[in-house]
Amino acid sequence: MKYFVLGAGSWGCTIAQLLKDNGHDVMLWAHTKEHADDLNKRKTMPHIPDAKLDVLVTNDINEGKTADVIVLAVPVQYIRGVLEKINFKVNVILNLSKGIEISSGKRVSEIVDEVLKCPYAILSGPSHAEEVALHLPTAVVVAGHMAEVFQKEFSNEYFRVYVHDDVAGVELAGALKNVIAIAAGIVDGLGGWDNAKAALITRGLYEIAKFSAAFGANPLTFMGLAGIGDLVVTCGSKHSRNRRYGEMVAKGYDPIHLLEASKEIVEGAYTCKAIIENYGDKFDLPIISEVYQVIYNRKSPVESIKSLMNRSLKVEMGEVMKWLEENLKD
Amino acid sequence: MKYFVLGAGSWGCTIAQLLKDNGHDVMLWAHTKEHADDLNKRKTMPHIPDAKLDVLVTNDINEGKTADVIVLAVPVQYIRGVLEKINFKVNVILNLSKGIEISSGKRVSEIVDEVLKCPYAILSGPSHAEEVALHLPTAVVVAGHMAEVFQKEFSNEYFRVYVHDDVAGVELAGALKNVIAIAAGIVDGLGGWDNAKAALITRGLYEIAKFSAAFGANPLTFMGLAGIGDLVVTCGSKHSRNRRYGEMVAKGYDPIHLLEASKEIVEGAYTCKAIIENYGDKFDLPIISEVYQVIYNRKSPVESIKSLMNRSLKVEMGEVMKWLEENLKD
Repeated sequence: MKYFVLGAGSWGCTIAQLLKDNGHDVMLWAHTKEHADDLNKRKTMPHIPDAKLDVLVTNDINEGKTADVIVLAVPVQYIRGVLEKINFKVNVILNLSKGIEISSGKRVSEIVDEVLKCPYAILSGPSHAEEVALHLPTAVVVAGHMAEVFQKEFSNEYFRVYVHDDVAGVELAGALKNVIAIAAGIVDGLGGWDNAKAALITRGLYEIAKFSAAFGANPLTFMGLAGIGDLVVTCGSKHSRNRRYGEMVAKGYDPIHLLEASKEIVEGAYTCKAIIENYGDKFDLPIISEVYQVIYNRKSPVESIKSLMNRSLKVEMGEVMKWLEENLKD
Repeated sequence: MKYFVLGAGSWGCTIAQLLKDNGHDVMLWAHTKEHADDLNKRKTMPHIPDAKLDVLVTNDINEGKTADVIVLAVPVQYIRGVLEKINFKVNVILNLSKGIEISSGKRVSEIVDEVLKCPYAILSGPSHAEEVALHLPTAVVVAGHMAEVFQKEFSNEYFRVYVHDDVAGVELAGALKNVIAIAAGIVDGLGGWDNAKAALITRGLYEIAKFSAAFGANPLTFMGLAGIGDLVVTCGSKHSRNRRYGEMVAKGYDPIHLLEASKEIVEGAYTCKAIIENYGDKFDLPIISEVYQVIYNRKSPVESIKSLMNRSLKVEMGEVMKWLEENLKD
């Protein structure tokens, strides 16, 4: 099949090269002519100089007209603007970007539906571009339109794709994990307590799974690559900006000033705000609420941990079990 | 209630002190008189010199006769021998130890049932003793007889207990996670690839959840503290002997010589052997099988990863979904 990859950052370039290596017809689109020219000249990936880029890069979005698949590798906050440039018929969008549009609170599938009204699939999971570009073993999940086709076309000896049917779950897991990564970072900043961090990851996963079930997601999706897989990588990585943000907040930096000073968007902080301000009174969201309190009401992280520890005692998987019992019946 | 804690290693001492601090009547039992005398004299915990131990330690197991609860904090391979010393009626055993008896392949609940035939509960989760002893925040799960009572008696401001009803799942998660920790250690030894490690943790969790379902466990238990919570701590810790064993094997040390040379038992290596030799032909266990091949048939770790990557393509949560659909119906 013929692929047109929107977005020539490290992940877009990595996936374009992977598709080329897998024998497909691929072209990359870069946001500026300068970036396209630069990539065509130096033929290596941005930020990954050891990885060769052997794919033609264009700045003309109309080159995508003849593609069978438009791959979306643009940061979520810019997706709407890029999609609005498209004035040809799109057969299917395969999205690679994780997050929620801050201005609208919408998922990428909803943006695509509003702007292009075309079929949609999402590929997600623990996949640092730096490792995939160097052909290190990686496993991801794909859900949505033509998922089985994408599974076959993307899989190779270092990239293994599992099929899933839960688009909402895969999208929500990718966005909501950033809030839990901030919480994990806060524990790192307080002292790197292993028990507390593992508990926050586990209970955070439960919390986002339970919340997402109300929006059509299957909580079991969070037990998979797009859920716990991605969360483990994010919470363990020195480079995750959400985790690092939490760490710096716990070390005493002002949470709002840090957000303003950050060159990159700390998506978890905005996702957290969107959730609490829209749904905080309708759902029991202890960890996300405490992250919100720490960032926006300057609650002390130590007091937040105390609040979490002193809640009323619970059954472990209570609400997810209830959901599954109600929803898995014929 | 009155507790008698069998085992005066760091976890037994930590839990005994926690129960004392929570206002309960506690006595500790040490395997040797020398160890009991030493602890009574120095009044600090073994290996955690900063933590005070303010609990009377005895070497006479009959002191447990009047206890309401016998707490089991003895390494799994010694549990049968210790239980056989008991010649009084036991109301309930609360087990804190993770693992499977190598000689019989049995879980601790089965050993207790064979030797004492008394009610049983298990407390498990991500809980390094070193952190609990210093009152750092920790969350665990308790399942089985009187679980709600133990939840209340153990919980305090730094130790939060969730109730579960799946004894088999909590036990199997604690034992089987050690095999996945070896696999994660192998990836660390090969180069510390984040994507591959996250994939192995996620797919490993799925594999042990699916396997355990055949033994009466609920696969959802593996999404909780005894499952992913404990696995995250084990796979992230420099000190986990199962993870470290995998790392050394990947670096070229002979797997069998390493097992023989280890002062402590690398339980994951034996658990893996027991599973593959008893059930390898009845279940699809790709990761556990590759760990077995690497340890017992000296397969190269790189070849093992290749084998895992090149299996036929799958649906992500296929078999767990099927199990839940079949078992959660009324």
